[in-house]
Amino acid sequence: MRKVQLAPSVFGADIVNLKEELKIMEQNNVDLLHVDVMDGAFVNRIAFGSDHIRMLKKHTNIPLDVHMMIERPERYIDSFIDAGADIISIHQESTVMLEHCLQVIKNKGRLAGVVLSPATTPECLRYIMNLVDMVLIMTVNPGEGKQTFMKSMLPKIREVKEMIQDKNIDIEVDGSIDEETAAICLSAGANIFVSGGYIFTDTEKNISILQKILNIPKKHI
Amino acid sequence: MRKVQLAPSVFGADIVNLKEELKIMEQNNVDLLHVDVMDGAFVNRIAFGSDHIRMLKKHTNIPLDVHMMIERPERYIDSFIDAGADIISIHQESTVMLEHCLQVIKNKGRLAGVVLSPATTPECLRYIMNLVDMVLIMTVNPGEGKQTFMKSMLPKIREVKEMIQDKNIDIEVDGSIDEETAAICLSAGANIFVSGGYIFTDTEKNISILQKILNIPKKHI
Amino acid sequence: MRKVQLAPSVFGADIVNLKEELKIMEQNNVDLLHVDVMDGAFVNRIAFGSDHIRMLKKHTNIPLDVHMMIERPERYIDSFIDAGADIISIHQESTVMLEHCLQVIKNKGRLAGVVLSPATTPECLRYIMNLVDMVLIMTVNPGEGKQTFMKSMLPKIREVKEMIQDKNIDIEVDGSIDEETAAICLSAGANIFVSGGYIFTDTEKNISILQKILNIPKKHI
Amino acid sequence: MRKVQLAPSVFGADIVNLKEELKIMEQNNVDLLHVDVMDGAFVNRIAFGSDHIRMLKKHTNIPLDVHMMIERPERYIDSFIDAGADIISIHQESTVMLEHCLQVIKNKGRLAGVVLSPATTPECLRYIMNLVDMVLIMTVNPGEGKQTFMKSMLPKIREVKEMIQDKNIDIEVDGSIDEETAAICLSAGANIFVSGGYIFTDTEKNISILQKILNIPKKHI
Amino acid sequence: MRKVQLAPSVFGADIVNLKEELKIMEQNNVDLLHVDVMDGAFVNRIAFGSDHIRMLKKHTNIPLDVHMMIERPERYIDSFIDAGADIISIHQESTVMLEHCLQVIKNKGRLAGVVLSPATTPECLRYIMNLVDMVLIMTVNPGEGKQTFMKSMLPKIREVKEMIQDKNIDIEVDGSIDEETAAICLSAGANIFVSGGYIFTDTEKNISILQKILNIPKKHI
Amino acid sequence: MRKVQLAPSVFGADIVNLKEELKIMEQNNVDLLHVDVMDGAFVNRIAFGSDHIRMLKKHTNIPLDVHMMIERPERYIDSFIDAGADIISIHQESTVMLEHCLQVIKNKGRLAGVVLSPATTPECLRYIMNLVDMVLIMTVNPGEGKQTFMKSMLPKIREVKEMIQDKNIDIEVDGSIDEETAAICLSAGANIFVSGGYIFTDTEKNISILQKILNIPKKHI
Repeated sequence: MRKVQLAPSVFGADIVNLKEELKIMEQNNVDLLHVDVMDGAFVNRIAFGSDHIRMLKKHTNIPLDVHMMIERPERYIDSFIDAGADIISIHQESTVMLEHCLQVIKNKGRLAGVVLSPATTPECLRYIMNLVDMVLIMTVNPGEGKQTFMKSMLPKIREVKEMIQDKNIDIEVDGSIDEETAAICLSAGANIFVSGGYIFTDTEKNISILQKILNIPKKHI
Repeated sequence: MRKVQLAPSVFGADIVNLKEELKIMEQNNVDLLHVDVMDGAFVNRIAFGSDHIRMLKKHTNIPLDVHMMIERPERYIDSFIDAGADIISIHQESTVMLEHCLQVIKNKGRLAGVVLSPATTPECLRYIMNLVDMVLIMTVNPGEGKQTFMKSMLPKIREVKEMIQDKNIDIEVDGSIDEETAAICLSAGANIFVSGGYIFTDTEKNISILQKILNIPKKHI
Repeated sequence: MRKVQLAPSVFGADIVNLKEELKIMEQNNVDLLHVDVMDGAFVNRIAFGSDHIRMLKKHTNIPLDVHMMIERPERYIDSFIDAGADIISIHQESTVMLEHCLQVIKNKGRLAGVVLSPATTPECLRYIMNLVDMVLIMTVNPGEGKQTFMKSMLPKIREVKEMIQDKNIDIEVDGSIDEETAAICLSAGANIFVSGGYIFTDTEKNISILQKILNIPKKHI
Repeated sequence: MRKVQLAPSVFGADIVNLKEELKIMEQNNVDLLHVDVMDGAFVNRIAFGSDHIRMLKKHTNIPLDVHMMIERPERYIDSFIDAGADIISIHQESTVMLEHCLQVIKNKGRLAGVVLSPATTPECLRYIMNLVDMVLIMTVNPGEGKQTFMKSMLPKIREVKEMIQDKNIDIEVDGSIDEETAAICLSAGANIFVSGGYIFTDTEKNISILQKILNIPKKHI
Repeated sequence: MRKVQLAPSVFGADIVNLKEELKIMEQNNVDLLHVDVMDGAFVNRIAFGSDHIRMLKKHTNIPLDVHMMIERPERYIDSFIDAGADIISIHQESTVMLEHCLQVIKNKGRLAGVVLSPATTPECLRYIMNLVDMVLIMTVNPGEGKQTFMKSMLPKIREVKEMIQDKNIDIEVDGSIDEETAAICLSAGANIFVSGGYIFTDTEKNISILQKILNIPKKHI
Repeated sequence: MRKVQLAPSVFGADIVNLKEELKIMEQNNVDLLHVDVMDGAFVNRIAFGSDHIRMLKKHTNIPLDVHMMIERPERYIDSFIDAGADIISIHQESTVMLEHCLQVIKNKGRLAGVVLSPATTPECLRYIMNLVDMVLIMTVNPGEGKQTFMKSMLPKIREVKEMIQDKNIDIEVDGSIDEETAAICLSAGANIFVSGGYIFTDTEKNISILQKILNIPKKHI
């Protein structure tokens, strides 16, 4: 199985407290920093662009896991990579150039992900597996608030797990991940866990809880 | 003449240092906090949505001056007002419902601005003056980087000044405003000064410089 | 002065009572039947397409005055003319091909109108006057509900009146037209009066009131 | 098997005769009133918005079965529900937020449908079955005129029938449904039958024919 | 097996040398002239419209095989057929009216193709096979430059071959087709071969090489 | 007065005869080669992209005068300049970033034009005159066929002439320019003359006629 990783989502943190939150995340050895990029068109919210990625990169060594929730992401991949994105994930529903997007990311030496919104089946992965480093399975609707974890996505995790077989592909889950839902996603086959609202209500404590549940070793600094 | 005000633009600040920057701005009595909302479609950049407005509002009493650089702003006015926007400015070029947008802002008891991109003439203000609290004149292209102040906008400031006569309407300028350009915009008739990059290279010092040049009294806390 | 005309707007009538309302309008000699075409994109409402125009045409001889509130009206002009539209009015804000739209309407032998939303100035009419049969001045925001008549549009009526001089061009007003506002628009120079909600609360009576105020003679059948 | 229902499509009726047509439909106990909402962008036709739904609701108790043929239906679901829609069906091809749309409909206590255009496979239903009350299978191209029933859709009806197994999900068909095609769709597994043009050429008679063919009992009033 | 055909892509030829290139193609009996139509929106390039099709048609009897890489191709099918297109292929990803597009092409007596971008699975063909004359499988990303043949598309060729069984449907491949890749696509099941850049570096010679490899007989004029 | 120049429009030439037509144009010393770039969205036609510009550049030293009739031209300015465009003209109606577009063209050392569609007034030029090298006044609707010269545009030529005073700005006209209309545009103040259909019906002869009428000296080769 692929290495289990925790990816706190910066959109869940208070923007005015970022310095402090970053410090806690670093001290607690989170694996990735998940950044939601939203354009108010592909999703009903606006947040974070490449300038913010650049600022985050300047302050932390935690790899940046950028989730593109924008229309026509092909317009912006280059600028996000230049700004410091380490992983870039593209929604299957957001582009008619999915393969091209992945190619551009890979050509620049970064990791490429494909995101599946709740209604989307993994069928679209079949002919692009050779370019995919990560499949991000949404367990809530992207860009919406106050939602509950969708148990109906668990079979999708299993289906993707089946499809990737022994390839080096991570399965990330995003949406209402907490101590309970993380555990069932882990069982289903996910190995990267995004968590925003839950973690930042009590950052240090909840990171620890999730790391324990997910059996992620506390590394020494 | 209308009260002269300084409006540092939060997009120019390091997102990881917001707490500290907010504190300096409060201690130095800046009048407004300018927030650039960008969607990657109306302009070539993405930044800040209503969730960020809400977080900023929680931390500061400085009125929030929200500059909507998005397509079809009519979709999002309500959510930005609910999040805490005090002034909302709409680009003339971004909507076919300009009057409607202003009406919605005014009906909710907030101040309404109209923004003019560099090529846009003030002609569009003629039939909506009764709804306008502020005219924001861009002195660089919105959403682009590394630009120099456009002196060709000075006659536009004067033209708008002429149009508003003795109405209670502010004239705001945004784009490469520093000690030199602030002074000439002031002379031309502007009374609200947005400044991002310049201020945040040395926040306290540059706020003071601008306040001095603009003759804004340092209030006691 | 151009002939004064009354144009009840079918969107204000109960769709289930159209037969009866049509009969009243015919018996009371209204001059035009105004039809709002809305696409939920140019305006925030959806209503009536060319199929409905065709059905109305089959039932009445009242000329159909079609108000296109849709994006890219150039796509649909032909089908609305084929369906029976007698006048087609195009929003200046809805197309980058305004002149072309008017040309297509005129080439098919119909009357062509240009609509000005509240924030729009008549400047756009200057180079197309030779193709314009009617200027429709919105006195509320198109496609929105529960609005009050905008007195700020009266100077626009006068400005357009001035521009058209002695050309054969009608000035139509649309938006919260009732006995009071009709009178002041008439004074300002309008000669075609759209009225929806007001008329259809008591169709026969209110048509008569407006006709009297506007000094439109009751013709005998 | 689910209850067999007849759903005359109001778009097929003469808009000027709606009162009379509604009366006949009520007297003949049709089960649903199908309302086509078209925006001239997702399909090449414009028709009916929430205001018309509201008017229809005021006049009849027949449940309103609203077929959204518009781009980005997520913008309008709330207003259609407020206006009185009982069932709202969303085209899979019209939104990148299919699951979210269904969720909004269900949260407001209405029935949610998914529509499949002719080229669309039922694959997209796999992960959202828990939110679906109805699958609408188009048997002609949506929004186009003068078409013949596509027999190639019969295997799709069977495939969907297979997928839903014993879940409480209706299968609706829409497109050139008449006495002949209704029968073969029924055999294939459909249980709700939309019919527009065919019914309204001779409303009472053709409703009766379809009810007989479909074995729908004439209830007493 | 279907007849093997060579389809040089005119976009690969120097536009200033078209007369000469056309002559060579005719003398060497190429089967089809492939024409890329690109709108700078569906793909990142602009090229060739119906006016160019008309000009080509005037000069050659080689059937024109038109590859529509544009958004909403339904807007332009008629004009391309009128201009002389013999085959029109529509990208599955470019329209929500795929079936309708094919129907329009077939109704006008031309051959209809469906194009699959690299990430697209053949699933979308299942319910429209009765209208399809050709499946075009992209072996590079459409509209991009400097790409290498994607071997990962070979299983897709085989999968489509399997789906079409003994129906009269051609399988065309497009993207970095040269002597080496043509051979492996032929083995996988393709029977029409688009080639642009490769052929026009040395037109006569490379046509001959491909014809030889593909075992296409040199017909006498 | 600015130098008078003739700019044959390559879209009017038979694409298969370009080599020959180019030769005639060179031998007859035409001043510019006008290239229409059309995307089927901003106008109802598709033609020529940067790849074609590059090919033309390779074959001729006549400066390329590129007329961008595309939505959001800001996406493609760089690629057209890299391909060899010498002048790039942007439609005022096609972008919300007009000033930015001009800036990008000027920064790359090329000449920048602004195009005015028939309904557009020159008002939009007022604040960008310092960046404009040429104003292109359309004398027919862009992208449409079979049109006649619009005499109503003559006052616009005079108005622009008035606005530019003694600045180094050319006035170009485009649309049904022939021996008759060229003369009246010249009188009105235009100094660059695009001509497509007229010239290429008899290239050498009609170039000569226009050069004579416009008093352009035949230079020796």
